[in-house]
Amino acid sequence: MTQGEARLIEQASRNLGPKVVITDPKEIEPWVSDWRGRVHGASPAILAPGSTREVAEIVVLAAEHRVPLVPQGGNTGMAAGATPPSDGSAVLLSMRRMNRIRSVSIENRLAIAEAGVILATLHDAAHDVGMRFPLTLGARGSCTIGGLTSTNAGGTQVLKFGTMRTLVAGVEAVLPDGSIHDGLSGLKKDNRGYSLDQLLIGAEGTLGVVTAVALRLVSAIASRAVAWAGVGSPAKALDLLRFLETRTSHVEGFELVPQDSLDLVLKHVPGTRPPLSGTHAWHVLIEATVSDAGTDISAELERLLASALDAGNIQDATIAANEAQAEAFWKIRDSISEAERAEGQTLAHDISVAVAQMPRFITEASAEVERAFPGVIASGFGHLGDGNIHFHVRAGSHAAPDWYEAEGAAITRFVDDLVTVAGGSISAEHGIGQLKLSEFARLASPARIHALRAIKHALDPLGIMNPGKLVP
Amino acid sequence: MTQGEARLIEQASRNLGPKVVITDPKEIEPWVSDWRGRVHGASPAILAPGSTREVAEIVVLAAEHRVPLVPQGGNTGMAAGATPPSDGSAVLLSMRRMNRIRSVSIENRLAIAEAGVILATLHDAAHDVGMRFPLTLGARGSCTIGGLTSTNAGGTQVLKFGTMRTLVAGVEAVLPDGSIHDGLSGLKKDNRGYSLDQLLIGAEGTLGVVTAVALRLVSAIASRAVAWAGVGSPAKALDLLRFLETRTSHVEGFELVPQDSLDLVLKHVPGTRPPLSGTHAWHVLIEATVSDAGTDISAELERLLASALDAGNIQDATIAANEAQAEAFWKIRDSISEAERAEGQTLAHDISVAVAQMPRFITEASAEVERAFPGVIASGFGHLGDGNIHFHVRAGSHAAPDWYEAEGAAITRFVDDLVTVAGGSISAEHGIGQLKLSEFARLASPARIHALRAIKHALDPLGIMNPGKLVP
Repeated sequence: MTQGEARLIEQASRNLGPKVVITDPKEIEPWVSDWRGRVHGASPAILAPGSTREVAEIVVLAAEHRVPLVPQGGNTGMAAGATPPSDGSAVLLSMRRMNRIRSVSIENRLAIAEAGVILATLHDAAHDVGMRFPLTLGARGSCTIGGLTSTNAGGTQVLKFGTMRTLVAGVEAVLPDGSIHDGLSGLKKDNRGYSLDQLLIGAEGTLGVVTAVALRLVSAIASRAVAWAGVGSPAKALDLLRFLETRTSHVEGFELVPQDSLDLVLKHVPGTRPPLSGTHAWHVLIEATVSDAGTDISAELERLLASALDAGNIQDATIAANEAQAEAFWKIRDSISEAERAEGQTLAHDISVAVAQMPRFITEASAEVERAFPGVIASGFGHLGDGNIHFHVRAGSHAAPDWYEAEGAAITRFVDDLVTVAGGSISAEHGIGQLKLSEFARLASPARIHALRAIKHALDPLGIMNPGKLVP
Repeated sequence: MTQGEARLIEQASRNLGPKVVITDPKEIEPWVSDWRGRVHGASPAILAPGSTREVAEIVVLAAEHRVPLVPQGGNTGMAAGATPPSDGSAVLLSMRRMNRIRSVSIENRLAIAEAGVILATLHDAAHDVGMRFPLTLGARGSCTIGGLTSTNAGGTQVLKFGTMRTLVAGVEAVLPDGSIHDGLSGLKKDNRGYSLDQLLIGAEGTLGVVTAVALRLVSAIASRAVAWAGVGSPAKALDLLRFLETRTSHVEGFELVPQDSLDLVLKHVPGTRPPLSGTHAWHVLIEATVSDAGTDISAELERLLASALDAGNIQDATIAANEAQAEAFWKIRDSISEAERAEGQTLAHDISVAVAQMPRFITEASAEVERAFPGVIASGFGHLGDGNIHFHVRAGSHAAPDWYEAEGAAITRFVDDLVTVAGGSISAEHGIGQLKLSEFARLASPARIHALRAIKHALDPLGIMNPGKLVP
């Protein structure tokens, strides 16, 4: 522990009470590594403020003693953006005690949630008043609103509702000088200068600590239809999406699944079964919802899929007969990563290219990776309609036990180069954190890096907000 | 002309050719005042680059000679953000020659338009391929994509499609150091650091020159229904909107019009006639559209308005029988400002509060202003569903000819105070420019002003990008 850290911890405890300061190593230990166990950090304490005012006091103390803070929510991030450095030179700032939903307004279609509110809790609160917060993802039971905002999270309903950048109506944050930015007014239109809200979204805590967020709510779902379709190729899958989009505005989920991924799920995840009787090179999971009870969305989707079958866009399709079957379809999609891990070593890449280019990218990049690294199996699954897939490279059965460590970086560089040549992003929805920092530095334009550094230095001249993350 | 300006102009002419440099005072004169004739500036020349590369060269020269640039598009702004200072200490940078639509992609639902493209031209280009760019506003025939982006423009279809901040998928800009930020990849998801695109949207040219923009396209309108309804109060109007929103997703325009404004239009604008036979304290113009030919939107809207009549939300309503009548309804809405000017002196305020609060704000603020400034007539019209109205204060028939100059600032301060107390914005969609700069400085939080100045100084340390605008 540095002298500055000791002073920060002592003064925080004295000013804000012992509840705010956790120093028991056993209580700290679960939070200093990322959840996938890739990155291990250390922190002499966890500071856990209960209010925006307490966050501001901590930031002022941290600035005074030059102690970097690492804001953390549910610690479910994919890029180790909330994991402290391993030398213990920074202190974890846990936002989990700030878990109040301050308001839910049907009239303004807004909820104001503190940073530590769990996503599933917000879902429930919106549901309780007959509304809905549409963004969702696998970690919904533990990820927090602050983390989702700070990483501009995406998930499975982006197609219709956008990422957090679209769904956040305003941000309250403590800036690195301890001042409070209050963007929670819930205004739909506000042109008073640069959007600090938008700057803080996706900033991964490097420009300040998000303390509360105003979130757009949408009408609750009256009914949904979930379908599974077999298609010949990613191009055919995108054709199907276009076919549907020109005929209905109700599609909100459209997930691509290769046969290879389906096979792994069926092999490793108990209780799963194939949605279709035959095999198909590729599959699509489709979710359509309506908010008015008058529309029979199942019938509409069934009719559209029948037309798509006639038009040759799909090979086969089935609509979930009930909610249990709908959940079973989604479980397949949500279990792909787990099944891959059960099968062996896997290297994940969260990438995006322009939507229209994605089918060709999947096909060509998979072939190129498999040619360059013989034995591996490459494929992409996920959010085809967003131009965002999780491009995973599996070790193959003959790989050495240290394949991941030995080959991983080279394969990732190879994939990232392909993405960059295609004009895409090496981080579509997971952020940069620390895991992608060197690749970001290698591939970003000098103009972008210069601008990021200038903004970071301007707002955080002492470098106390989550250093070593996001900004190369 | 300063020595720096002379060198900039001379070198730009030599390096880029005489076409890029306009020095004839007659050609300069129409562009140095804002279109409402409120603010008069001066510029020794207009630099009119034809490409992003030429913009970059000009910015490098401007930096070298420390000459501020004032980017300008169609010069239709409401806050004099594109008007140069009156002492001739800055040079106008006209983006109008950069008027190419680089691409329109049906597959990616994106158009890439250079900064100087006129909005109506983009509308036509999207229409030509069976798509639509939904943002529109009165100045559509002369405003430019660069200006719309730099002011985060709104307009009449924000309710469904959002402001430019939502519709811009990416920005290409020349930053103050002459480097080029290329955000035109058209990615739907990209989490590589702070969003420079979002920072440039609404920055009014103070952080760089927007040179091209990727814009989201939506499905073309198959048919539309335009209705006019009489309601008892702004609260009843908002009830009507909520009533419609829970029953249909097709409403995209919802404009509030007070009887007073309707009367002025009927009095001053030839060829206009009242949509309804009776008089009502307030009116609403409703536009609903569908992109699929199968839906009879007129019948749907008629049925919904009949239910609203039964439910007591409205007093009367009529659906435009044909396109000519629909245009006539819109003409009333679009002529309010013109009619007010014909009637006498008017003070305009573009303000927003939370949507649910707006009905009460209109009623109470109008009463308070009329009480504080006897003789004036205050009312609000416009985008009720966005929580954004144009709150106009008219001089009244007994006002002195210099009422605007004598009383305007005090009335505006009074209105801005009411807005601020209500948690609203003194600039909902028009920006800050130079006209609202002192009020912004007076009312913004110190945290916001500090952050804005820090960002401005970080990216434009020499202060050459549109100084004296937006940043207090």
